Amino acid sequence: MSYKDPNKPAGERAEDLLGLMTLEEKVGQLIQPFGWQTYEHRDGKITLTEDFKTQVQQSGVGSLYGMLRADPWTGVSLESGLSPREGAEAVNTLQRYVLEHSRLGIPVLIGEECSHGHMAIGATVFPVPLSLGSSWNVELYREVCRAVALETRSQGGAVTYSPVLDVVRDPRWGRTEECFGEDAYLIGEMAVAAVEGLQGESLQSPGSVGATLKHFVGYGSSEGGRNAGPVHMGWRELLEVDLLPFKKAVEAGAVSIMPAYNEIDGVPCTTNSVLLEDILRKAWGFEGLVITDCGAIDMLAAGHDVAEDGMDAAVQALKAGIDMEMSGEIYGSYLLEAVRQGRLDMELLDRAALRVLTLKFRLGLFEQPFADPEAAERVIGSEQHRLLARQVAGESIILLKNEADVLPLSKASGTIAVIGPNADAGYNQLGDYTSPQPPDRVTTVLRGIRSKLAAEPQRVLYAPGCRIKGDSREGFEAAMACAEQADTIVMVVGGSSARDFGEGSIDLKTGASKVTENAWNDMDCGEGIDRMSLALSGVQLELIQQIHQLGKPVIVVYINGRPVSEPWIDEHADAILEAWYPGQEGGQAVADILFGDVNPSGKLTLSVPKDVGQLPVYYNGKRSRGKRYLEADSQPQYPFGYGLSYTSYAYSALKVEPEVIAADETATVTVDIQNTGEREGAEVVQLYISDVASKVTRPARELKAFRKIRLAPGEKRTVQFTVGPEQLQYIGPDLQPVVEPGSFKVLVGRHVNDTLSADLTVRG
Amino acid sequence: MSYKDPNKPAGERAEDLLGLMTLEEKVGQLIQPFGWQTYEHRDGKITLTEDFKTQVQQSGVGSLYGMLRADPWTGVSLESGLSPREGAEAVNTLQRYVLEHSRLGIPVLIGEECSHGHMAIGATVFPVPLSLGSSWNVELYREVCRAVALETRSQGGAVTYSPVLDVVRDPRWGRTEECFGEDAYLIGEMAVAAVEGLQGESLQSPGSVGATLKHFVGYGSSEGGRNAGPVHMGWRELLEVDLLPFKKAVEAGAVSIMPAYNEIDGVPCTTNSVLLEDILRKAWGFEGLVITDCGAIDMLAAGHDVAEDGMDAAVQALKAGIDMEMSGEIYGSYLLEAVRQGRLDMELLDRAALRVLTLKFRLGLFEQPFADPEAAERVIGSEQHRLLARQVAGESIILLKNEADVLPLSKASGTIAVIGPNADAGYNQLGDYTSPQPPDRVTTVLRGIRSKLAAEPQRVLYAPGCRIKGDSREGFEAAMACAEQADTIVMVVGGSSARDFGEGSIDLKTGASKVTENAWNDMDCGEGIDRMSLALSGVQLELIQQIHQLGKPVIVVYINGRPVSEPWIDEHADAILEAWYPGQEGGQAVADILFGDVNPSGKLTLSVPKDVGQLPVYYNGKRSRGKRYLEADSQPQYPFGYGLSYTSYAYSALKVEPEVIAADETATVTVDIQNTGEREGAEVVQLYISDVASKVTRPARELKAFRKIRLAPGEKRTVQFTVGPEQLQYIGPDLQPVVEPGSFKVLVGRHVNDTLSADLTVRG
Repeated sequence: MSYKDPNKPAGERAEDLLGLMTLEEKVGQLIQPFGWQTYEHRDGKITLTEDFKTQVQQSGVGSLYGMLRADPWTGVSLESGLSPREGAEAVNTLQRYVLEHSRLGIPVLIGEECSHGHMAIGATVFPVPLSLGSSWNVELYREVCRAVALETRSQGGAVTYSPVLDVVRDPRWGRTEECFGEDAYLIGEMAVAAVEGLQGESLQSPGSVGATLKHFVGYGSSEGGRNAGPVHMGWRELLEVDLLPFKKAVEAGAVSIMPAYNEIDGVPCTTNSVLLEDILRKAWGFEGLVITDCGAIDMLAAGHDVAEDGMDAAVQALKAGIDMEMSGEIYGSYLLEAVRQGRLDMELLDRAALRVLTLKFRLGLFEQPFADPEAAERVIGSEQHRLLARQVAGESIILLKNEADVLPLSKASGTIAVIGPNADAGYNQLGDYTSPQPPDRVTTVLRGIRSKLAAEPQRVLYAPGCRIKGDSREGFEAAMACAEQADTIVMVVGGSSARDFGEGSIDLKTGASKVTENAWNDMDCGEGIDRMSLALSGVQLELIQQIHQLGKPVIVVYINGRPVSEPWIDEHADAILEAWYPGQEGGQAVADILFGDVNPSGKLTLSVPKDVGQLPVYYNGKRSRGKRYLEADSQPQYPFGYGLSYTSYAYSALKVEPEVIAADETATVTVDIQNTGEREGAEVVQLYISDVASKVTRPARELKAFRKIRLAPGEKRTVQFTVGPEQLQYIGPDLQPVVEPGSFKVLVGRHVNDTLSADLTVRG
Repeated sequence: MSYKDPNKPAGERAEDLLGLMTLEEKVGQLIQPFGWQTYEHRDGKITLTEDFKTQVQQSGVGSLYGMLRADPWTGVSLESGLSPREGAEAVNTLQRYVLEHSRLGIPVLIGEECSHGHMAIGATVFPVPLSLGSSWNVELYREVCRAVALETRSQGGAVTYSPVLDVVRDPRWGRTEECFGEDAYLIGEMAVAAVEGLQGESLQSPGSVGATLKHFVGYGSSEGGRNAGPVHMGWRELLEVDLLPFKKAVEAGAVSIMPAYNEIDGVPCTTNSVLLEDILRKAWGFEGLVITDCGAIDMLAAGHDVAEDGMDAAVQALKAGIDMEMSGEIYGSYLLEAVRQGRLDMELLDRAALRVLTLKFRLGLFEQPFADPEAAERVIGSEQHRLLARQVAGESIILLKNEADVLPLSKASGTIAVIGPNADAGYNQLGDYTSPQPPDRVTTVLRGIRSKLAAEPQRVLYAPGCRIKGDSREGFEAAMACAEQADTIVMVVGGSSARDFGEGSIDLKTGASKVTENAWNDMDCGEGIDRMSLALSGVQLELIQQIHQLGKPVIVVYINGRPVSEPWIDEHADAILEAWYPGQEGGQAVADILFGDVNPSGKLTLSVPKDVGQLPVYYNGKRSRGKRYLEADSQPQYPFGYGLSYTSYAYSALKVEPEVIAADETATVTVDIQNTGEREGAEVVQLYISDVASKVTRPARELKAFRKIRLAPGEKRTVQFTVGPEQLQYIGPDLQPVVEPGSFKVLVGRHVNDTLSADLTVRG
């Protein structure tokens, strides 16, 4: 039985094992029940359910989804859920049962949500991906992924359902926060960092988990920004934009991928064999696992209506290239029945089962199927990870406006009123796909500011003012009273992706609330919560307008999951910080920036529209896209790559050498950047390419490289980039990549609309 | 010289003639200068310009664009322009010169804008296509096209740049008014009627003109509703939706087609040989002329940037399948130079020139190149055409709301205040692509209402209240004073596509204006005027809200070019009429409906969104498109096919026979419709097909047949449809049409969301 030999290649071991398996056992490997439903937790004791035990005994269980997920959807709460150590122990109880009670003792593959931290109680909650992307710090993001992998694997999670590589085209979409932004190149860089960070040097190390790339593909272009809606897109755009980050991540070695819910031009991704076989496996050489999104196979028969019934759906999916159904059990039973009825070749079933087994071997699960309770207690939510969360949040927050240098605030004098529904609502800064955290683990903006002025607590006042949603103005009076006593007002507004079925306990008059509590009915973002407007929800704008009438400096901090279009605020606020959902340390990071302990260096990874009526607004559209509407131009309020600093940077001496290259050669681009202000700071140097003329239409500008550098006051540095085939190619008339001879512009600068320009020619 | 023999086939004659031509003469056939620039009109006398004469003598001139176009763009005004007889005479002067002074005496092909009437002074202005489509009366529209052809050809126009067959997907687009609506089937029916009506039995008859199908293709799906913006679309959707009306019109014999400005997935339509050669010519067998849109070839080198320079653009265009450049001369000179430089095969040039010549022979221009001044005087703007314009406007106006049967109004008693910027602004009801008309030829709503109460003029009061755009409220007071004296208020609001460079002369306090004058700066719709909002422009809503406070019945009449999203009006107005731009008789038609002389029977051909933030909103989206936003569902305010009547109709006894058919068979669908009210009326019986499951995703419902029937009070009629391969097929996985075995629903009713349902099965 060579499958037991750890020295044999994973594929060979899997083949060997497969040869020993019954039809039922093979099918058993393709299912993935909900993890949290496999056990009961009572009085500190874990008991596996009888259903689960039966399944294990009958056929084994291939995978489990979310062993430790706690949220209103699972019904697991902070109180009823497991501590890190308990979680790891629960996993071990379960794995042990599987090893001992299934015929072949195949360990379970535990898959977990880890978009910006393991979705488990106590795990470190980093900023949401939209924020992580805004750091433009690939190395730092890789570190974040290492931390997430370490925390996850310590509790037995072997595969994560991240990174999300969707290219955002419509911020009405509630999942905008889960994505890195609107640019395929930037997403691709983050994708590689995610794979490297999550999977580490070896998949079998205790600090590594398998990455699942999602959602393959086009999911960020759903019609009307409505989640999982149809995608209207041709093959060239797909190949050039939406597929690019996936290609890079596959090349980086990602072991798992998840087709998107949506259809593209009539074909659901779940049954799109051109995507799953021709592109992913044949062209890219992907050898990992293809797992559907939750319920995606059901959707084929009830939603997309491309299948007659569930069995037809299951058979179509398997044939198209699906291996496993996320959180699905019925897939397996349909496949079983289909093989028995002769509607499905055993070969296809074997193919899928083999991929599951191969992944388990690659992950070392046969050698080490267990979690590590000791490590879990040590690494989950560790101080080191907390500091990392604070650091990355600080690098991701974007300073959009700073009139008359109102920021940074002085620590020495003045009273600050911290007002707004997100000033002290901890859950609201965590974003979607997070589990509840102990109250003292989340630092809100109010807490962060108080920490800066800890010696003089009376200098910090607080009032919530209003809720995120709803039209209650009963907190306005208290907020005004608070603001009247202050010298400076920090308005913390935005959105909420916090799912909580309970009633929110925030008292609008007194501000009393528990940091871990917020109301489901304040949710205006997150998966399934798409909006018709990009304005602030509820009466938040009105609250700001009233307080603004006091004539005091007003600093607006957005804590939210999608860009805000509020022209009034853009015009009247003295300063604006966009923090997205900055994670558990987000309030501390905001305070670091407000008081100048951190110099802001985050840059927008998506364009902020002036109004929902301008959509789509993204920087790398085609040149023919039209300049204006009757009411306004079609340009964003804040462009891609934009973000201010407390210092200033001068760009000069852009050079391209040589200026003429052959199609397979590279040129060296250099540019000088000097910190011309009086504070140290980090600048994101951005390189864009503009193809002057080409066989098919091209975006006006495309990001092709960037580097975040740190400069002391007065320091000047030369940054060097290489521009060659990878930066110059595009998907040509025949849908193949081509570097076309002709003229290019190389543009380097601080954001897409503020660059130096130099010429580069590719010889014919 | 067989080209002179009218008994030879056109193609043979063209080949013969081509054989006699020099390179310069061939190129001369591919150019199309502006017609109005070829002559000067002074003191009733027409003088051809020296430039034009030189061109004629040197190479001949293939075509002219807009001999008689009068509008601010051409600089030709009502005063400086030509009367119908003069216009015809000018054409004859010109043709005579060409025949006598060019070497081969090839007559000029005169092309004219005729979207809803010949764009010339004095021509009958029918409602805009969006309105014509709303009639759902294909036969009546065919009559309109006959009238347009007769008027146009009498002045020498031989080809029209209509019909517009774009499928509207985004009503922010300023050209929405020029399209029939959002449904490809309905557009296809109108397209066939247009070709039949314009081209008549014989292209050589004095009442026929060649039809130019435009814009080929996807132009109604431009990104963000921005005119000519890029289109994101896959081949299946293109084939199934946007190409369908063009295919039907080609099958109906259309002789000319115009590629759209836009690109699709990176390829401009102007250079898309898959569209122009593979689909249009090879698959569909089109043998007519391909003419670009105005400036489209320039745009290849400066806009799309797929060409290095003008010559490259011209060569690429010709190679891709372009024959003539609209209103362009530089195309010809580039081609001439390209052939001389050996960059272009003479064969390709010959191919294009041959198509121009063939079309001229088919149109009989060699036998009869002249206009008919007598006929022009007789038919242009004739009483018969005026009545037709009134009739079709009456059939196209849509009753959206009629609370407590406030309509129709009584002629016997009561005072009516007619208020609003479109109440007496004649130009605003004509729509884009119209030339100025003598003031007494345009009946505004105010005039229409006055005509109904001609015996008691004191019962009709008027105030403009405000402009279409701008924030001036100086007319509010007069409007309120006017409303206070009335029993019923008719608010005539909406938009304007009237291009006029002069200052508008409307006096907001007194209402004094000239019907032919309106201001350019009131334009909020029309080509190039795309909007970010679907709300009423300016302070129109505010005016209605103020007047509504009087507590009197308020009837809102929209005169506009795109759907209005105004939830407040939907809720508070007592009645709402959507008239679109109803043409020169539009005010009369509105009055006919207000007073019940005509029973409304128009139906929406596009969905009216609740808000711009819902876009895209169209009825035949995919089932997976998502149900709702946080703020509201994703459904329209008024659905496709909707429109009320002063009577009521009962649908019953829907039957499909047989209920099971083979894939190549048809079934007969019957349904009973009874007029259950007390007025005669016309009902549009609509048949939709819903494919229960299919290999690729399908729209939830698709219009596949309709019939407009007239019923006396109490009358009951059985309407019969045939459902077979044409209704059941779709573009399958391999991009070929297929009728797939399985279950279908046949839905018949009054609008897309109010239907009876029956089953139909296609045997496997």
